Amino acid sequence: MRIIRTKGGNLDSIVKEIRGGREVFDEGILGTAREIVEDVAARGDEALFFHTERLDGFRLDAKNVEVSQEEMSEALAGLTETEEEVIAFAAKRIRTYHERQMEGLKGDWRWDEGEGSFLGQVVRPLKRVGIYAPGGLASYPSTVLMAAVPARTAGVEEIILATPSRPGALAPAMARAAQISGIKRIFRVGGAQAIAALAHGTTTVPRVDKIVGPGNAYVAAAKKLVFGQVAIDMIAGPSEILIIADAEADPALIAADLLGQAEHDELAVALVATPSEPLAKAVAGEVARQLARLPRAQTAGAALKGQGAVIITADLDEAFELANRFAPEHLELLVAEPHRELSRVKNAGCVFLGAASPEAVGDYTAGSNHILPTCGTARYASPLGVYDFLKRISVVGLSPRAFQRYGRKAADFAKLEGFAGHAASIAIRDRL
Amino acid sequence: MRIIRTKGGNLDSIVKEIRGGREVFDEGILGTAREIVEDVAARGDEALFFHTERLDGFRLDAKNVEVSQEEMSEALAGLTETEEEVIAFAAKRIRTYHERQMEGLKGDWRWDEGEGSFLGQVVRPLKRVGIYAPGGLASYPSTVLMAAVPARTAGVEEIILATPSRPGALAPAMARAAQISGIKRIFRVGGAQAIAALAHGTTTVPRVDKIVGPGNAYVAAAKKLVFGQVAIDMIAGPSEILIIADAEADPALIAADLLGQAEHDELAVALVATPSEPLAKAVAGEVARQLARLPRAQTAGAALKGQGAVIITADLDEAFELANRFAPEHLELLVAEPHRELSRVKNAGCVFLGAASPEAVGDYTAGSNHILPTCGTARYASPLGVYDFLKRISVVGLSPRAFQRYGRKAADFAKLEGFAGHAASIAIRDRL
Repeated sequence: MRIIRTKGGNLDSIVKEIRGGREVFDEGILGTAREIVEDVAARGDEALFFHTERLDGFRLDAKNVEVSQEEMSEALAGLTETEEEVIAFAAKRIRTYHERQMEGLKGDWRWDEGEGSFLGQVVRPLKRVGIYAPGGLASYPSTVLMAAVPARTAGVEEIILATPSRPGALAPAMARAAQISGIKRIFRVGGAQAIAALAHGTTTVPRVDKIVGPGNAYVAAAKKLVFGQVAIDMIAGPSEILIIADAEADPALIAADLLGQAEHDELAVALVATPSEPLAKAVAGEVARQLARLPRAQTAGAALKGQGAVIITADLDEAFELANRFAPEHLELLVAEPHRELSRVKNAGCVFLGAASPEAVGDYTAGSNHILPTCGTARYASPLGVYDFLKRISVVGLSPRAFQRYGRKAADFAKLEGFAGHAASIAIRDRL
Repeated sequence: MRIIRTKGGNLDSIVKEIRGGREVFDEGILGTAREIVEDVAARGDEALFFHTERLDGFRLDAKNVEVSQEEMSEALAGLTETEEEVIAFAAKRIRTYHERQMEGLKGDWRWDEGEGSFLGQVVRPLKRVGIYAPGGLASYPSTVLMAAVPARTAGVEEIILATPSRPGALAPAMARAAQISGIKRIFRVGGAQAIAALAHGTTTVPRVDKIVGPGNAYVAAAKKLVFGQVAIDMIAGPSEILIIADAEADPALIAADLLGQAEHDELAVALVATPSEPLAKAVAGEVARQLARLPRAQTAGAALKGQGAVIITADLDEAFELANRFAPEHLELLVAEPHRELSRVKNAGCVFLGAASPEAVGDYTAGSNHILPTCGTARYASPLGVYDFLKRISVVGLSPRAFQRYGRKAADFAKLEGFAGHAASIAIRDRL
C-alpha cells in the first residue's frame, strides 16, 4: 500500500492520479451495448431471447422469461434460517430509514397569495419502476432491498425486477429479498438486453418509467444509452472508501475497513487521508498483516496496489479538502469529534461517524442506502432514495384578480421575445 | 386542425400517433455531436474556438471568449425601460416561488435512535453550475431567469452562462437577466462545443458539476453524451400543451392558448381533449379565425397541421386518462371545478387551473418554472427546481451500543454474500 505525501496544492493531481485516466466507458463497450439496445428496441422479445442465449448461455421463451409463482415458492422453500433472518432484519431497518426520509421530504406545498389564488407543487410517485440486479454467482439480495424498499416506500405501484437466472435456478435469498420488498414480477434477463427491454418494452417485458440498480460495464453503458427514453438512477463505477483519520485512530480498524472495500473487485478504491505519519505507517503494516488472512486476498491485494494509498496531509483541514475534491462514495471520519466535523463534508455519498460506524454496517443493516454515487459524481448526485421514485408537478391556480395584477405582465415579456401569440392569449382574457 | 374521436381503448394509439415515430435523436445528430464533444474533450480551447468559427461563423480567442465587465456594462446601457421592468418583475416572482419551494423541501433530517446514535441526511448545494441558453435571434432572457434563479436560491456558489454571441454583441436583455439572477461569468459559446467545454473544462471554460437549460437538437445530443461526466437537467423536446375542456369552456380562449403554443416551432404539440362535440367544432373554427391574425401564422399553422388536434372523448374521465398517458409538458384544466380535479392529474409538467391561468403566464410571470419535462418524460421527471441544484449526503452515526444491537448483524449478511472482509471489519469491533 502506497504512502503519498501532499505537497501544498497538489490535491487535484493526487485525485487525478488515483482515479487514473480511466474512461467510464470505452468505445468498444458502448458500441457493443448500442447494438444490443437497438436490436431489442427493433425486434423486442426475439432479440431479447437471442442475446440472452448468446451471452448468458441459456434459451428463454415467452413462457419462462418471467419467474412463475411456482418457481418463486420453490425458491423460497430453499431459504436457510440465517438468510431469512438477516434479510428480514435488513429489510425492516431499510424500510424505517426510508420512511423517515419520506417524512423529511415534505411533499406538496402551496404559496397562497390570497383572493383564491395560489401556486405550488404536488408530488406523485412514479407508476412502474424496473430494478436491475446482477444474478448468478455474484447475486446480491441486499441490493434488491436497497433498490426496491425505497421505491415501495415512495408509493410506486409496480416494481419489476430483472435479474438473470437459468429457468428453475432463482436463488432463494434473491426470491425472499424480492418478496419482502414488494416486487411482484421477476424477469430472468440480464445485461444490456435487459436494460433495453425495460426501456423500450417487449411483448413480455413491460416498459418502465425508471431503471435503477447497479450492473457490469455493459449494463452501465446500456443505461447511458437509454437515458432520455426512461429515467435512470446513476451510472455506477467501482466502489470507493476514503477514511479521514487523526493520530489517535486505531490502525487495525482502518486496515479492516480498507480491506472490506478492496475485496469488492480489482478496481475498488481504498484511501486514508491523515496528517499523522506514524498512523500512516501503522495502517500500511496492518493492511499487509490482515490481507494475508483474507479469502479474497488476491482481489483485495490488486485493488490496494492499484488504487490503495495512505495520503499524509499537512493537517486535518487539508484531509477534508482532499476528501471534498475526491467526493468519495463512502467517507469514514475516524477523528476526535466526528459529529462536529460533519459540517466540513461537502461531497460524499455516505458519511460514517466514528469507530462504531464502519462502512460494512451501511452496506447492510444501518438502514441507509448502499446504492451511492461513485467516481466523483457525489459532486452532484445523491444516494438512491425515495426522491428517486417521486416527481413533482407544478400548479398555477390564479384568480381573475391575481391574473390582472401580475398575469397580464406576461404579455410584455412575450412581446419582448417575439411571441405575439402568447401575448394574444393574455390579451383575450381582458374580459375576465 | 384535426378532430379525432376516441373509440374505447385506443388512447395509447392516439398518443403514439400524435407523438409520431419521431426519434428524439437521429443517428446523424448524435454522431455529429459526438465528434464535437470528443474533440473538445481532447483539444480543449483550440477545438472550442475551431467549432465556434466553423458553425457560428465568428472567431473567438482566450481573451474574448468570456464576456468582459466592460462589455457587460455596455450591453446593460442599451436596455430599454420595458425590458428592465419586465425582467425585474419576472425575476422577483420567480425568486419568490423558488424560495417557497426551498421551504417546501425540508432539508436535513435525523432519525435519532437514542443512546447518542442517529442516521439521517444532510443537504448541500452544488458548487458550480453551467446554464446553457440559445443566443442570436432566438435568445430568451426568460430562460436565463428560469435556470439561474433556482440555482441561486438553492445556494449554488458559481453560476456560469454559456450563450453564443459575436464579441461585442451581447443582447441587453440577456445581460440584464444574467445580472439580476446572480450570474458572474458569461462565455459566448454555443452548440455541442459549449456543452463539451462545460462538461470537460478547457483552459478558459471551467468544468461544472451540472448543465441545465434548453438548446437545439445538437445541444440536446451533446447533453446526452456528456451525461455521467456531469449531471444534466433533462433533454428538451418540442413544447406541448394539452387542454382538458368541458362543454362550458370558452372556445376563443382555448384557441388562443393553442396558438400561443403552436407559434413556438413547427414541431410544437397543441391538443384539446373534450367530451363535447360542439366545443370541438367551435375550437377548430376559432383556431382558423385567430390563426389568420398571427404574425407567426406559418409556423403555427404547420405545427397545428402536424401535431394539432381536438380529441373528442367519451367523457371527462377519459380525457384525464388520455392526459395522464400523454404526460404533457403543459396541462390546462378548463373545467367547472379545476381545483377539485387536480387530484386526477398523475403526469404533467405544469398544471394550469381555470380560465385565469393561461399557460403564457407560466412562461413568464407566474413565478413557477417554464423549464419543464417534454415528450412524455413527465411520467418520471419534474420541472426544473431548487432540488436540481441540491444533493444529499447520508449520515450513519452509531454509538457503540447501537453498533452491538444491529450493526453486528451486518456481518451475517456479508457472509451470505461472500464478503469475508466486510464481516471481519465488523468482528474486529467486538472490543468497542
